[in-house]
Amino acid sequence: MTTAYELRCRECGRAYGNQPLSICEDCFSPLEVEFDLERARGRFTREAITAGPLNMWRYKALLPVAEDYVPTTPAGMTPLLSAPRLGARIGAKNLYIKNDAVCLPTLSFKDRVVAVALANAQAFGFDTVGCSSTGNLANAVAAGAARLGLKTYILVPADLEPAKILNTQVYGATLVRIDGNYDHCNRLCSQIAEKYNWGFVNVNLRPYYAEGSKSVGFEIAEQLGWRLPDNVVVPMAGGSLITKIKKAFRELVALGLVADKPVKFFGAQATGCSPISTAVKAGADGIEPQRPNTIARSLAIGNPADGPYAIKAIRESGGWAEDVSDVEIVSAIQELAETEGVFTETAGGVTTAVTARLYAHGRIKPGELTVSCITGNGLKTTDVLNGAYEQAVPVKPKMTEFAAWLDERTGELVEVA
Amino acid sequence: MTTAYELRCRECGRAYGNQPLSICEDCFSPLEVEFDLERARGRFTREAITAGPLNMWRYKALLPVAEDYVPTTPAGMTPLLSAPRLGARIGAKNLYIKNDAVCLPTLSFKDRVVAVALANAQAFGFDTVGCSSTGNLANAVAAGAARLGLKTYILVPADLEPAKILNTQVYGATLVRIDGNYDHCNRLCSQIAEKYNWGFVNVNLRPYYAEGSKSVGFEIAEQLGWRLPDNVVVPMAGGSLITKIKKAFRELVALGLVADKPVKFFGAQATGCSPISTAVKAGADGIEPQRPNTIARSLAIGNPADGPYAIKAIRESGGWAEDVSDVEIVSAIQELAETEGVFTETAGGVTTAVTARLYAHGRIKPGELTVSCITGNGLKTTDVLNGAYEQAVPVKPKMTEFAAWLDERTGELVEVA
Ligand SMILES: Cc1ncc(COP(=O)(O)O)c(C=O)c1O
Ligand SMILES: Cc1ncc(COP(=O)(O)O)c(C=O)c1O
Ligand SMILES: [Zn+2]
Ligand SMILES: [Zn+2]
Repeated sequence: MTTAYELRCRECGRAYGNQPLSICEDCFSPLEVEFDLERARGRFTREAITAGPLNMWRYKALLPVAEDYVPTTPAGMTPLLSAPRLGARIGAKNLYIKNDAVCLPTLSFKDRVVAVALANAQAFGFDTVGCSSTGNLANAVAAGAARLGLKTYILVPADLEPAKILNTQVYGATLVRIDGNYDHCNRLCSQIAEKYNWGFVNVNLRPYYAEGSKSVGFEIAEQLGWRLPDNVVVPMAGGSLITKIKKAFRELVALGLVADKPVKFFGAQATGCSPISTAVKAGADGIEPQRPNTIARSLAIGNPADGPYAIKAIRESGGWAEDVSDVEIVSAIQELAETEGVFTETAGGVTTAVTARLYAHGRIKPGELTVSCITGNGLKTTDVLNGAYEQAVPVKPKMTEFAAWLDERTGELVEVA
Repeated sequence: MTTAYELRCRECGRAYGNQPLSICEDCFSPLEVEFDLERARGRFTREAITAGPLNMWRYKALLPVAEDYVPTTPAGMTPLLSAPRLGARIGAKNLYIKNDAVCLPTLSFKDRVVAVALANAQAFGFDTVGCSSTGNLANAVAAGAARLGLKTYILVPADLEPAKILNTQVYGATLVRIDGNYDHCNRLCSQIAEKYNWGFVNVNLRPYYAEGSKSVGFEIAEQLGWRLPDNVVVPMAGGSLITKIKKAFRELVALGLVADKPVKFFGAQATGCSPISTAVKAGADGIEPQRPNTIARSLAIGNPADGPYAIKAIRESGGWAEDVSDVEIVSAIQELAETEGVFTETAGGVTTAVTARLYAHGRIKPGELTVSCITGNGLKTTDVLNGAYEQAVPVKPKMTEFAAWLDERTGELVEVA
C-alpha cells in the first residue's frame, strides 16, 4: 500500500486504491477500506488522540480522510453514560449507554458515517451528493451538505408521509419523490451516481461512509479508560455498524491502545424486520430476505447488504442476536427515558428491549461490563407514543383542589409544612 | 460571605445565605446568587477549566454547587460554529453561531439551568421537583429528574395539545393539567412549593437555576480563544439569559481570564410577544405586559420577570433590541438550516431573523465579531414548517424519466459521463 489506506475487495482481496467505488469489478463483492496499520502506529496513539478535537475527528488517523483534512463539523464523541437505574430494572450491574441519540449535528449515529462520506465527496471533487433514505441518513446528508455548500438530492418513495421529510427539506435538499419502493430508489441512485458523477454516500462512497462507524468503537474504548467491554449490544439494519465497532476494537488492539480480551457482540432487530437475528438464531450463514413490517423504520432493511458479515461477527465473538415486538419497543423507549433521561427513537427501543432480554435469558451476566448502543433520537419518532398516555382530568387552579387531587393520587399525606 | 456564594437581594442587597428562596422578604425584589470572586480566583483559572470535563461543569467554580459536587449529566459545551454561508447572505463577515440546538441532554439551553437547579434540589434534600412549562423547560426537568430518580410534577394549562407534551411524559414525569392559563399554573407552583416542600426549578430554586445560563457566556469566551466578542445576539423570554451572559463576561474579566473590552448586547423577540424589545425601542425602563400571539411559544412570556434587568443590560452595553414577525421567523429557520446545517426551533428563528436585521440596519458592522445564540432544536417545532414545502410530482424509477425531470428542473445539461 502506498497510501495510508485503500479499497480492497472483501472476498477476493483485489486492491483498488482510492476512488468512488463500492463493488469489486471481478467478483461483485463489497469493497472495504483497509488501513496500513503500521503506518498509522506513530499517529494513532493515546496521546495524539487525547490532544485532538473533542469529536470523532480525534481518531482521524484511522478514518479514511487525507492526513491534512480539516474537519468542519463536530460529529461524534457522544456521552457514554452509566445506567444504574435501567440496570436495576433489568438485572444489570455494570451497564453503559452509548448515547448517539445526541450525536451532532442531526441526532443519530448517521452523522458519523456522513461526515466521512462528505469529506471524501469533497476530496473526489463531487459538487452534488445524495442518498436514498427517509430518515436519519437523509437528515445527516442534507445538514452536512448544506454546511459545505454542496448540492443535495434525496430520493424517497412517493408514498412517504410529508411530515417525515420536512426535517430534511428544511436544509434545502432537493427531494425527489420516486414512484416506487425503496429498492427502486436505491437502484436508481446507483445509475444516477454513475451517469451524473454525483457522490451518493451509501452507494459509490459506501466504503468510506461505512468506515465512519468505527468511531463508535474508538469512543467506547477511550471512554471506558482505554479498555474493551465484555459485551456490546448494537442495533442492525444493513448490518454494517456492528461489524465496524468490531473492526475498531481490533485496530485498537493491533496498535496496542487497549489490551486484548474477548468481546461478545449482540445484534438487535425488530421482529417485524429481523433477517439477521433470524439467521443467527437458526444457525444459518446467509440471509433470507424479509418484507419489513415494524415501527422501527430506521432498522427496516429486509435484505441487509452486510448481513452475512454481521452474522459472522456475532457468531465468532460468542454473542447472539435477538428481536423484539413493536409493543416491547415502545415500552423500552419509555423505560430508558424514565430511568436514565435518554429519549430514543424506535431503533433505541429495539436495542434497549433486546438488552433487557439478553439479561433475562442469561446470555449476558449481571456483572459483565456491557455497552448498549443507542443510535437515534426520540423526537424523530414521537408518533409511536401517540395514545401511550392518558389525558388526566384537569385540576382547578386552587391549592385546595390540587391538594385533593394529590391526596387521591398518592393515597397518602405528603404535606410537610 | 462565609461561603463561596450566597443569595443577595438585587435591590436592597440583603444577604440570605443559601436556601430555596427567590424573593426578598423585605422588598419583594428577586434574589440573585453572588460569588465571592476572590475566593474563586485560585480555582477558576484557564488551566483548571481546560483540565475539567468537556461540559458546563468545567466552570463549576463559578456555578452555585458545592465544591465537591459530582455532576451526573453532561450538559453544555455546545459547538460555537463559524457561519460564513449565513454571513454571506446577511452581510456578516465574522459571524458565529452558539449552537444550543444540540445542548445535551434535551436539546435546548434549558438543560444548563436545570442541571444547576437539580443539583441544588438534591443539596437541599428535595425528593420532588417540578416546573410549569410546556416546552423546553418541562423536557429538561423531566429528563434530568428521571436520571436522578427524583419525583417530578409538571403543571400545564389543560388546553395544551397532547402532542406537545408527549416528549415530557415519556420521561415518566407526572403531568398536572390545570384548568387555567400559565399565570394560574405559575401561581399554583409557588403555593405548592411552599406547602409540600417541593423544589420548583424556576420558583423557589430560581436564583440557582438562572445562574446556569452563565455557562453560555463562559463557553463563548473560551471557544473564541479566551476573548470576548464585539456583539452577542440573544433571544429573550423572561429576560434572564441575556443578563447572565453579561454577568459571565464580567466575571471572566474580573478574574483576568479575558481582556476587558466593550461588548454590545442585542435582544431578540417575536413581534407577537415583544415587551422587552418594545421597551428598548421606546427608551422605556419598565415593561408594559403583552398578551402573547406568536409561533415562538418558547419566548412567549408577556410579563417577563427579568425584563427591566434585560433592558438595562442592553442599554448600558450600547446594544439594541429587535422583534420579527412569524413569517420572518419561519424564513430564518430555513435560512439557517440551508446555509449552516443547523435546524433550530422558533426561538432560533427569532434570533437569526433579528441578527439579519441588525446587520441590515447597520447596528452591527460586517467585520465585528458577533455571536448569535441559537437556543433550541427544530425537531420540537416542526409544525411551523407544515405547508412550507410543495409536494413535487413523483418521478418514475427509470433513468430516462429521472434525466428528463432533472433537465426540466435545472434547465441545463448536467450530464458528464
Ligand atoms: C438509528 C439507527 N440505528 C442503527 C442503524 C443500523 O445501522 P446498520 O445499517 O449499519 O446496521 C441505523 C441504520 O439506518 C439507524 O438509522
Ligand atoms: C429556546 C429558548 N430560548 C431562549 C429562551 C429565553 O430565556 P430567558 O427566559 O432567560 O430570557 C427560552 C426560555 O424559555 C427558551 O426556551
Ligand atoms: Zn473481488
Ligand atoms: Zn430586598
